[in-house]
Amino acid sequence: VEATLINVFVVPEEKEEEFLERWQATSKVFQSSGWLLEAHLHRNTDAGNTTFRFVNVARWASAEAWRLAHENHPPSEYEIEGVIGHPSIFEPVYDVYSDTMTEVRARTHWLAANHP
Amino acid sequence: VEATLINVFVVPEEKEEEFLERWQATSKVFQSSGWLLEAHLHRNTDAGNTTFRFVNVARWASAEAWRLAHENHPPSEYEIEGVIGHPSIFEPVYDVYSDTMTEVRARTHWLAANHP
Repeated sequence: VEATLINVFVVPEEKEEEFLERWQATSKVFQSSGWLLEAHLHRNTDAGNTTFRFVNVARWASAEAWRLAHENHPPSEYEIEGVIGHPSIFEPVYDVYSDTMTEVRARTHWLAANHP
Repeated sequence: VEATLINVFVVPEEKEEEFLERWQATSKVFQSSGWLLEAHLHRNTDAGNTTFRFVNVARWASAEAWRLAHENHPPSEYEIEGVIGHPSIFEPVYDVYSDTMTEVRARTHWLAANHP
């Protein structure tokens, strides 16, 4: 079953560039595993709470594939001083659109729809 | 400019039901404003880090619309004891697919592609 990974990162300002370099390198390794289906890294614009500098929302082949990939290749971005991640697999609960609100019973794959 | 809101919530286990009820009520108010374009609430499966019980990934008409909506209607889920949110507007940095990795310069709307 495909799985949604969400990870919010604390990253000290002076470590942002190094973080981005390492995140890219890690993502390339995970890409080559075939288990990472897509990942979307976001940066905080500081319009609200500034605790988390970066957020990754990704789709993996399965929760087990995600776990194994990290066991085989622990992401080096965590070696940067001050970087703290909070990675876990999340399941959808509610999908809200401008005119509907749906409780999600079966897993939906809303992340999958936008491959270029 | 459309804006991506990401909010990770700490929610005590015994408050989950109340949180979900209030989150739905808040979302209905924001729906009726016309500024909330979509929202996707996720629950932690506890496959990894368990700090954040729920994560909302949403798309708003603009960062300013998001700010104004919360000024007009402060979400009541924050009144629940032990609930802590970390809402902010995020911009895309990298989009990774199985065979490509793209640095995002212009804002993309990958969340928008899956309207049912």
